[in-house]
Amino acid sequence: MISEHMKPLVAGNSAIRAMFEEGRRMAGEFGAENVYDFSLGNPNVPAPKEVNEAIVDIIENEDSHKVHGYMPNAGHPEVRKAVADNLNGRYGTDYTAENVIMTVGAGSALNVMLKTILDPDDEVIVFAPYFVEYRSYISNYYGKTVELETTGDEGFMPDPDKLASLINERTKAVIINNPNNPTGVIYPADVIAKLAGVLLAKEKEIGHSIYLISDEPYREIAYDGARVPWLPDFYQNTIIGYSFSKSLSLPGERIGYVLVPSQIEGADEFIAAATIANRVSGDVNAPSLIQLAVARCLDAKVDVDFYRKNRDLLLEIMDLAGFEYVKPEGAFYLWVKSPVDDDKEFVQAGKKEHILMVPGSSFAGPGYVRLSYCVSKDMILRSKDAFLRLGEAFK
Amino acid sequence: MISEHMKPLVAGNSAIRAMFEEGRRMAGEFGAENVYDFSLGNPNVPAPKEVNEAIVDIIENEDSHKVHGYMPNAGHPEVRKAVADNLNGRYGTDYTAENVIMTVGAGSALNVMLKTILDPDDEVIVFAPYFVEYRSYISNYYGKTVELETTGDEGFMPDPDKLASLINERTKAVIINNPNNPTGVIYPADVIAKLAGVLLAKEKEIGHSIYLISDEPYREIAYDGARVPWLPDFYQNTIIGYSFSKSLSLPGERIGYVLVPSQIEGADEFIAAATIANRVSGDVNAPSLIQLAVARCLDAKVDVDFYRKNRDLLLEIMDLAGFEYVKPEGAFYLWVKSPVDDDKEFVQAGKKEHILMVPGSSFAGPGYVRLSYCVSKDMILRSKDAFLRLGEAFK
Repeated sequence: MISEHMKPLVAGNSAIRAMFEEGRRMAGEFGAENVYDFSLGNPNVPAPKEVNEAIVDIIENEDSHKVHGYMPNAGHPEVRKAVADNLNGRYGTDYTAENVIMTVGAGSALNVMLKTILDPDDEVIVFAPYFVEYRSYISNYYGKTVELETTGDEGFMPDPDKLASLINERTKAVIINNPNNPTGVIYPADVIAKLAGVLLAKEKEIGHSIYLISDEPYREIAYDGARVPWLPDFYQNTIIGYSFSKSLSLPGERIGYVLVPSQIEGADEFIAAATIANRVSGDVNAPSLIQLAVARCLDAKVDVDFYRKNRDLLLEIMDLAGFEYVKPEGAFYLWVKSPVDDDKEFVQAGKKEHILMVPGSSFAGPGYVRLSYCVSKDMILRSKDAFLRLGEAFK
Repeated sequence: MISEHMKPLVAGNSAIRAMFEEGRRMAGEFGAENVYDFSLGNPNVPAPKEVNEAIVDIIENEDSHKVHGYMPNAGHPEVRKAVADNLNGRYGTDYTAENVIMTVGAGSALNVMLKTILDPDDEVIVFAPYFVEYRSYISNYYGKTVELETTGDEGFMPDPDKLASLINERTKAVIINNPNNPTGVIYPADVIAKLAGVLLAKEKEIGHSIYLISDEPYREIAYDGARVPWLPDFYQNTIIGYSFSKSLSLPGERIGYVLVPSQIEGADEFIAAATIANRVSGDVNAPSLIQLAVARCLDAKVDVDFYRKNRDLLLEIMDLAGFEYVKPEGAFYLWVKSPVDDDKEFVQAGKKEHILMVPGSSFAGPGYVRLSYCVSKDMILRSKDAFLRLGEAFK
């Protein structure tokens, strides 16, 4: 007797779960080495050694009550200060501990921000294709997801006029994911500036703030010298959700933060409400030990070049197999055009070659598939012949 | 521009926050050793050494990808199996890993259960006085909190007839907290059996399940041989939220679980929905490293006798000062009758003696105050004269 609200989620979940189970079944039947699983965004690069060194040092040298006990709901003050200081050093900003709320990963960071601002029937604009969980997050607060479609012809950049046309008095926020999952594109400064212009004009028109929620778990995963713009420099009412899942390969530890710059309208009230949202969600606070550990590793980095090499290897294979794609500038996803209109048909054909891909329709991006290349180089090499056969099948 | 939904929470939060700030201010003004802070449930007993040994061993000997990476949303299968096996050994049950969903503490466990079952305007019954966050948790899903008042004359036991009178077709669940925060009472088997009888009859009458949500973070903190009944033995549709915060002194680490016994109606669908609720809340999964660590420490215990000694010491002081109280059988809270009707007036008088207590009205239990005795023995000893003066003032 589950809630009406959960029923569609349970029904919709079965497709993705079926894929995972299919992957496990295939690994069992054909051997794990003969299955090419590009479906999951679970980083293959280990956490930098600094993280584990920090954990052991904290456990061995700090007081148990401090390490494992409650701290203020927004997180350890010195951790929040370290995060603020680190951002200040990189972006020339002047954030303090007060601007940072430690959260249970970026997923909770987004939920904290959305809970803070949304009442039922409020609208949030997302740029499709997008991380499909945004829809669930918005629905948690009975909000409405409004999709701004972007296309391959536009390089998956959002059109400012389209954005303007979607905003009305119920619009509370726009979510931007930079670099983007699933396309791997980075929205550059000129695009951001145009979007900011639209938002600013629309705020005046509708008479209330529109928050730009920047979801930045891939901020550090950028290639070929590409730079992810710092959005608060472009738009006053920007709030940021961050995760250490990718930058420090800690996705299972659930550690991230919300940054609420003091420049946003009603910053003090927003910070107070977001801190309460973090608490009453049941999270109470971000996990303590890992908070203390990441604070010591803010300049540690996973090996981004590992992902860059994986990307280049996979692109070579795509070229040989004759598939079209968007060359990713960031994150670790490759967005490949399905050679047939129905991307699910392409995914099924891939499965016959033991290749696991996620259909683009799962990201509101039909006609494409997503390949995660946060996998072992060896698996990519082994997958080559399978991709070539798959390419042949669609010639 | 925060949501209408969050505004009352922000307004209501200021009173409790003001108390914490007052405590900090007083510690600064009078010296920490001259302030007697009984306001917080932050365990003073350190985590058992097994926990830290497990963490270091896991970090040094397990694969980084396993330790810090994603696992199934419900948690590491072997951790869930260990939890199930441990419960089976203690309660003669036959749970499997499938029945256990690891969560970000008991707060998230409660939210996962409530999200799974509640639609807007659904009702959840709580026994007052109660942990005030239940109201926020129920409100997260736009549900309605219905209070069943219990009184000191009844030993704070819920009256079965009152329970029956509060149930209607919108009733989805009853939350029970055993041992109870803030009263420290344990609901014994005969009381549970009567409540179960009412729920069973009412389920038939209204034609749908009523879940008994048992919130058990204090399950292991019981004194003088008192035993906390295992509720699934009494009522089919019991689901349990647990936390290692108190039993292993890890409140800041946010680690707990939901137990969904297979005996409940629609168990498979409930487990699927609860697993999704855990994911879409943004938590995704419980923190990985600490999951692995607690699985190795399921038989480790904090020193419950430390709390028992604290309790007895505090009771002696209460007797000397002439305060009435409920002798706690579990948890680490003492529920003291305010010598004046207005418990806030009593709290204010306590502050003048540098004693920090939480007013009972914060637990929907006016006329009482809550003292947490998960504090240092030394602080209790030092507080004696202040309590004696406070007692004098109300004679």
